[in-house]
Amino acid sequence: MANEKLVKEITGMDEDFAKWYTDVVIKAELIDYSSVRGCMIIRPYGYAIWENIQSILNQKFKETGHSNVYMPMFIPEGLLQKEKDHVEGFAPEVAWVTHGGNEPLEERLCVRPTSETLFCEHYANIVQSYRDLPKLYNQWCSVVRWEKTTRPFLRSREFLWQEGHTIHATAEEAQEETVRMLDVYASFCEDYLCIPVVKGIKTEKERFAGAESTYTIEALMHDGKALQSATSHYFGDGFAKAFGIMYSDKNNKLVHPFQTSWGITTRIIGAIIMTHGDDNGLVLPPSIAPVQVVIIPVASHKEGVIEKARELEQRLKGVCRVMLDDSDQSPGWKYAEYEMKGVPLRLEIGPRDIEKNQCVIVRRDTREKYFVSLEELEEKIPQLFKCFEKDLFNKAYERREGMTYTVDDLDELVKVAQEKPGFIKAYWCGKRECEDKLKEVAGVTSRCIPLDQHENHGKCVCCGEPTDKLLYWGKAY
Amino acid sequence: MANEKLVKEITGMDEDFAKWYTDVVIKAELIDYSSVRGCMIIRPYGYAIWENIQSILNQKFKETGHSNVYMPMFIPEGLLQKEKDHVEGFAPEVAWVTHGGNEPLEERLCVRPTSETLFCEHYANIVQSYRDLPKLYNQWCSVVRWEKTTRPFLRSREFLWQEGHTIHATAEEAQEETVRMLDVYASFCEDYLCIPVVKGIKTEKERFAGAESTYTIEALMHDGKALQSATSHYFGDGFAKAFGIMYSDKNNKLVHPFQTSWGITTRIIGAIIMTHGDDNGLVLPPSIAPVQVVIIPVASHKEGVIEKARELEQRLKGVCRVMLDDSDQSPGWKYAEYEMKGVPLRLEIGPRDIEKNQCVIVRRDTREKYFVSLEELEEKIPQLFKCFEKDLFNKAYERREGMTYTVDDLDELVKVAQEKPGFIKAYWCGKRECEDKLKEVAGVTSRCIPLDQHENHGKCVCCGEPTDKLLYWGKAY
Repeated sequence: MANEKLVKEITGMDEDFAKWYTDVVIKAELIDYSSVRGCMIIRPYGYAIWENIQSILNQKFKETGHSNVYMPMFIPEGLLQKEKDHVEGFAPEVAWVTHGGNEPLEERLCVRPTSETLFCEHYANIVQSYRDLPKLYNQWCSVVRWEKTTRPFLRSREFLWQEGHTIHATAEEAQEETVRMLDVYASFCEDYLCIPVVKGIKTEKERFAGAESTYTIEALMHDGKALQSATSHYFGDGFAKAFGIMYSDKNNKLVHPFQTSWGITTRIIGAIIMTHGDDNGLVLPPSIAPVQVVIIPVASHKEGVIEKARELEQRLKGVCRVMLDDSDQSPGWKYAEYEMKGVPLRLEIGPRDIEKNQCVIVRRDTREKYFVSLEELEEKIPQLFKCFEKDLFNKAYERREGMTYTVDDLDELVKVAQEKPGFIKAYWCGKRECEDKLKEVAGVTSRCIPLDQHENHGKCVCCGEPTDKLLYWGKAY
Repeated sequence: MANEKLVKEITGMDEDFAKWYTDVVIKAELIDYSSVRGCMIIRPYGYAIWENIQSILNQKFKETGHSNVYMPMFIPEGLLQKEKDHVEGFAPEVAWVTHGGNEPLEERLCVRPTSETLFCEHYANIVQSYRDLPKLYNQWCSVVRWEKTTRPFLRSREFLWQEGHTIHATAEEAQEETVRMLDVYASFCEDYLCIPVVKGIKTEKERFAGAESTYTIEALMHDGKALQSATSHYFGDGFAKAFGIMYSDKNNKLVHPFQTSWGITTRIIGAIIMTHGDDNGLVLPPSIAPVQVVIIPVASHKEGVIEKARELEQRLKGVCRVMLDDSDQSPGWKYAEYEMKGVPLRLEIGPRDIEKNQCVIVRRDTREKYFVSLEELEEKIPQLFKCFEKDLFNKAYERREGMTYTVDDLDELVKVAQEKPGFIKAYWCGKRECEDKLKEVAGVTSRCIPLDQHENHGKCVCCGEPTDKLLYWGKAY
């Protein structure tokens, strides 16, 4: 009964995907709204997911030689304007601070939408010689972009992210860094979040403001819309020239260094929800689940049940993030609650299980039941996690492949875009006008030129010109 | 020679303490300035100290039942104004966002100076029943206060901190929480940072805007000035009333809950510098030192030296945060460099040491030398850390006690305040006018009414009225 009721409170995915999404983020207590329009409160359960993401990525950033720093959250207008393309891209969507206390500021400050300009100013100050290079920095912070339409995690005026900023002696080194960090993101998404991604390069139109090239990983959500999941930018020496950053090389010649930046945001939590979730709520990959195993005592008034449940909780603390729910809610209510919250494994223990020295483990994704001997728990739970992860990934991968369509001409593309949500693969000549036309007639934008393509030959789906660029297109979040 | 030169670059403490401080934060690469006035760049070495502080405190907050959350960084003007005392305290020093993109906002937003108002609005939304209580939340973020005079770590327009915010069913519970968190801060400062603190209550004048009582820990810096190191506030039900937060208690009666908040900031890094530092630079307590042991090879061109140094680095990685400096700078340069950076232990290894199967360990604080057998390193290093911590604490404690003066009358107080930097203990009647007068005639402010005082009886140093309040007074950062 309770189970029924709870699940009914979540709109069905097929009924209204947008409403399903909002229901899930609210009912699973990931976020709350406030009177600060376009911003969100990230509640303990949502923030714990972000902390787990941070902890995994932070480790990977440190392993690849990066140090964390903290830059001011404000950027003086004059500093923001130093790189022409960059300011054009960001100025229309920043929040402006004009007063400090009761006094108007001499120069207005924007709340950082991204921190390239601040890092550049700092580099100009601390990079003098080739011995000072590379600098491999990262920052965890929040940034602000004044969006008109907002949705929890996917698009909000303030969001949390990390922004890596590096500076190198040579273009080659900076390019290697750009791709290295793209790979870190891709393997994080696939190995930890179980989200298959397409690695690729953005077209000039979709490039980051001020970048020479922007790399991206693109994922496909349950509803067939694409989600740009992380980006990595190569700047060449454009920012260095705009900010006068120079160093003396080994021959004592004064030259410009080369830069990169790369970032992933709380948006990725939206991707987790929309890749793995179902009509019962969240499904969380074990690596980032705040609770990996929830213990639910059954017939807990019977002698020894609560004690056994507590004993298991203590035992499993060294193995996983475990939680015992010994509240007076019914087991049925608890099943529904933790299904909604996406807890990967539910462990049921009742008097009959105790007699048999076993427990029941139920997987969140498939609802498969396992009878596990209490002796084998420490061994079995990590195995189930592995299995869970593999299955989550494969399911998402197969769905994506089943929703990826290769088309050869414009009519077909328009038809597929109208009728079949998903990725569309189509050749493109490289001209902005063809890209714009696809947006106009089919409502799709270029997602990326995948990195793994070799020896493609075809004709632009729009103008028919021969080309070797086979792109991913789609409607995107 | 190199040693000499480097050290000369730091102004002597006794010569100009303020300049010594600035020299240290810049030369040890803790911070850099930028064109964002009043804000600072926290560089990798400075940020690593903050990360270590965060990691210890975060653990303690979780052990005491708190969860991390994230609130918006903006507060609409109307929301800030809901609690009368609070807005009066903060409105004059906030930064105002008035434009989003190119459009003026309907209501201006301040950048959070602290987040009580946001938490209250959220509580009003999620707290309905006694079953929802307590909520024990914490947030790591940056806040902004538009200070006129700024100094790295000690007072900057933007600073990093954590702010705990809790809400409880009863006043007793909230009061217990306030004192519990004060104790967490005090033992963190004393046990990890080796900074002795006085725990006490602030006078009404010095209370946090909107609080019923403010608890503080006060430390004494090398120059005899006090530094408020962390605070914990009890709000009663004042905020709950202003924000309409109510819950139905066990008897189904609608009542107001009780709240607290507590915080510690990057200011504490300033306290570490000014408590333990010396004329050679920083001295860092091992628990928060980014590098705890630096290995410096001596005569590293000789066969086997670098190899041995690398072997030791690998071995010690499991024991402490170790770093090998195998650059081509001279050992003398390196000694001075890592002394300036406050690395607790320096490990020297050269050909003669290798022959004897030993190394030389030098303590940063006392410069004592230890000849340690290579077999005993894993055992000896943690022992040296313990010793180092104990000595740091004792030294600071003795200095503080030697700089704490008890005075009985106003003339004496004025004389001591003029001539002897440090804490002054003096009786106070409790009247605001006497407190104001001490500020006026002696330039001292009340630091706190210490918690550990019992059965004090004396006369107000200002008006002579009998009282049981023996306060700490001082000049403060």
